[in-house]
Amino acid sequence: MIGADVMVETLVRSGISVCFANPGTSEIHATVALERNSGMRPVLTLFEAVATGAADGYARMTGSPAAVLLHQGPGLANGLTNIHNATKARSPIVNIVGGHTRDHQLYDTPLKANIAGIAGTVCSWVREVKNPENMARDAAEAAAAANGPPGQVATLVVPSDCSWMEAGEPAGPLSACVRSDVSQDLVEAAAKALTCGEPAALFVGGTVLLDQSLALAGRIARSTGARLFGAGFFARLQRGAGRLNLERLPYFPEDAEAAVASLRQAVMVGCTEPVTFFAYPNSSGLVLAKECTRTVLAGPDANVAAALAALSDALETTDDLAVLDLPLPEEPTGNLTAEKAAAIIALNLPEGTIVSEEGITAGFECFNKTMGSAPHDWLFITGGGLGQGLTAATGAAIACPDRKVLCLHGDGGAMYTCQALWTQARENLDVTTVIFANRSYAILEVELQRLGLNHLSSELASLVSIDDPTLDFVKLAESMGVEAMRAKTAEEFRDQFCNCMKRDGPQLIEAIL
Amino acid sequence: MIGADVMVETLVRSGISVCFANPGTSEIHATVALERNSGMRPVLTLFEAVATGAADGYARMTGSPAAVLLHQGPGLANGLTNIHNATKARSPIVNIVGGHTRDHQLYDTPLKANIAGIAGTVCSWVREVKNPENMARDAAEAAAAANGPPGQVATLVVPSDCSWMEAGEPAGPLSACVRSDVSQDLVEAAAKALTCGEPAALFVGGTVLLDQSLALAGRIARSTGARLFGAGFFARLQRGAGRLNLERLPYFPEDAEAAVASLRQAVMVGCTEPVTFFAYPNSSGLVLAKECTRTVLAGPDANVAAALAALSDALETTDDLAVLDLPLPEEPTGNLTAEKAAAIIALNLPEGTIVSEEGITAGFECFNKTMGSAPHDWLFITGGGLGQGLTAATGAAIACPDRKVLCLHGDGGAMYTCQALWTQARENLDVTTVIFANRSYAILEVELQRLGLNHLSSELASLVSIDDPTLDFVKLAESMGVEAMRAKTAEEFRDQFCNCMKRDGPQLIEAIL
Repeated sequence: MIGADVMVETLVRSGISVCFANPGTSEIHATVALERNSGMRPVLTLFEAVATGAADGYARMTGSPAAVLLHQGPGLANGLTNIHNATKARSPIVNIVGGHTRDHQLYDTPLKANIAGIAGTVCSWVREVKNPENMARDAAEAAAAANGPPGQVATLVVPSDCSWMEAGEPAGPLSACVRSDVSQDLVEAAAKALTCGEPAALFVGGTVLLDQSLALAGRIARSTGARLFGAGFFARLQRGAGRLNLERLPYFPEDAEAAVASLRQAVMVGCTEPVTFFAYPNSSGLVLAKECTRTVLAGPDANVAAALAALSDALETTDDLAVLDLPLPEEPTGNLTAEKAAAIIALNLPEGTIVSEEGITAGFECFNKTMGSAPHDWLFITGGGLGQGLTAATGAAIACPDRKVLCLHGDGGAMYTCQALWTQARENLDVTTVIFANRSYAILEVELQRLGLNHLSSELASLVSIDDPTLDFVKLAESMGVEAMRAKTAEEFRDQFCNCMKRDGPQLIEAIL
Repeated sequence: MIGADVMVETLVRSGISVCFANPGTSEIHATVALERNSGMRPVLTLFEAVATGAADGYARMTGSPAAVLLHQGPGLANGLTNIHNATKARSPIVNIVGGHTRDHQLYDTPLKANIAGIAGTVCSWVREVKNPENMARDAAEAAAAANGPPGQVATLVVPSDCSWMEAGEPAGPLSACVRSDVSQDLVEAAAKALTCGEPAALFVGGTVLLDQSLALAGRIARSTGARLFGAGFFARLQRGAGRLNLERLPYFPEDAEAAVASLRQAVMVGCTEPVTFFAYPNSSGLVLAKECTRTVLAGPDANVAAALAALSDALETTDDLAVLDLPLPEEPTGNLTAEKAAAIIALNLPEGTIVSEEGITAGFECFNKTMGSAPHDWLFITGGGLGQGLTAATGAAIACPDRKVLCLHGDGGAMYTCQALWTQARENLDVTTVIFANRSYAILEVELQRLGLNHLSSELASLVSIDDPTLDFVKLAESMGVEAMRAKTAEEFRDQFCNCMKRDGPQLIEAIL
């Protein structure tokens, strides 16, 4: 078997069945191998960030890695931002990057680049295949490394001659590593923190945001009177009617600090201490008060489910099924605003929807309004690299073909990875994208106001405006084969949104705000 | 003066007057400073690869750096492929990347990334501003480093607190370094190689491809009987009627090796020995025969103009103005093909046009057919990272507002940086883009044929096809404010092309092949 076939079959045996691909000449044998192996579904993308972002979305929904196939240094570089986002999400991904033959790496060719070096800036597991005989072992170890703990992006650089040469037999799957358990001392310290009588909060992140663990976290919070916060920029949260409603820290430092100023005990499970997204003059970056005692029961990489169970046992919590009465917004009318669009989404969200949200300024409204919507999953931008929303939605739809995917996206951010729409059309994915068209980098307008610049010169205003020329997302979507429509009023948006929720297939609504 | 103002003013004093920007919150002070300084023109882009690629195109046409302003690790990552291309082109660029405050870098924030590490994989000059007082010096040294020799991308990482804090006074420009001269021994060796009576060729690259040096290279070739080759993937070539016509090596190894098999002496000026783009089974990667003696008179970073003059002196060449009679193609009719489109372009290319070409399979036709067109500049993809053509065209148009820019682009590659069209519309740049819509990654189809796969399964064919769904470049261009049209016949294409050449402003023709 040649190396490319060994690699693909080893990945299939390791449980990987989807490969998001953007191949070039160095990956031609891998491309043929993808097609030849019935256990692997190749999904073509027009841009590498779509491939890496889709693999991230896929991993968040399945907990398992997809493969990615990229072309040399430039292909890796184009996919790097969403690898950064995936790394922050702790998403398992096997990232295959084709390279020159081992001999050709000696020459100063146009594509010559430090592929492993580029990968190493973001991935902690990087390996270059040194000879074809290593291919099976290297592919199997890449899959095992991706599965963690923690889940991570494992990058395997494959010289093209190692793909086309005879390479022996594929390898079977390697057994997964186990997460480390937390000590009983830490459990008791956390229990004491929550019951010592001081104002306390439980901060949860990672897999604690998923159904069973989240319910247990809620039980702990209710039995101790602690407040319950979700970690800031989460990979996946299960929420909606009948589920626990977490507090979320405000974005700006002064608001976040005020929200937790009274706390004197903070216990972290599945996350570390909250910090602000950015630092500002006169903000320290930390959110909790100096007087607040921090107890990290389990970081994101530890066995958080066991830690939570141990904490619950130590606290002797009882199964007090709280009746949750989460509010829904009023039905809005008139000219469309972000708030009204969010209300319509909240009132009409189908049960089981996967929401991939990168609304930035509009996103907060959507998150707040949907707390009482039908149960759903919420995927968030984890690493601050824009354009993650459209691509994660694409991968989530591949992962969960029976569920509706709703992508809520700012217009500025959507332009970073608009090519995702083509893959959605090509694969006929059931994704509805809502573009919040405020026609500006609205977050930068807010930041300028925070600098005291309330009256911007037209030149300065133009540097944060993307309205000259006006982007036409209906034409943009149609150019890539996605049906699209535009809403200017709440009534139009409701009709279009409800139709999209009823029908299958890729659709886009440009919501003019 | 705060750091951001010091930085911008120092860059202005260093001769930089354009900044291609895609700022975020960490660069908010730099954004204000860009607007506040009348010596700097900010050009907004919707995606970082547009900013870096435009700076590359700008540098190729002016020989001087533009600045780029990017946001944190993800912004740098998105711009990295075109930094790789620019590095291969030896384009001077000052690449400013905003980062967290020095304190905030301690925390595990979503954007935390190894910014300098990412830059260091592609740039050999990288510096992080350590405190505001260093800003003036660091910005001045970045500009000097960019100017080389060789021209390069100098990356300056600017923590946001160094932007907003008091930072003293701007610095003046630093004097440029000089290129090293080549030794007289080398000159004599090169002269001997060209006159020893064995079949010889002169390979030229870098600035030897520009007018004066190119004429001198031609004189040397004619006076010695040597063949004259242009280096493979050049940054900028001045060519057309009345100018020298260089040979160019074929793309595939067997063709390239055959083209130079008889050579026994090769002299390189402004480039190194030719190598193939990729290696294949049974190809060595090198092109010249083993028996051929290589003499590198001057690599790309040496003083190539002086080296060429010294070689000409040693050879005692005379000013024999050769009458060049370069052919033009016939006027084509009927269904459009790449060859016919190339002929129409060749027959109707306005004098002084800047051609930014990333046609891949269609590009070779265009290059060959235009050898006798009105004098023009040709910019090529230097580093193999796709999407360079649209972005370099954008920067070239900013650099040379009085010249027509023609971007010739494959459809697959154009999807990597389609956001460049928006900046072209925003700045009303005189760029006509021709998309060669063969609706496939045609180079991969060729590679599959080379593997002996002439009859592709429909599944395999679909992995190199981008026709499901069909991309609509007319709608895509219109979505970003660029007027667009579609041609299916030679007659339609000629009418549209000639109209575009007569009118100003951004336009796009989708040529259906």
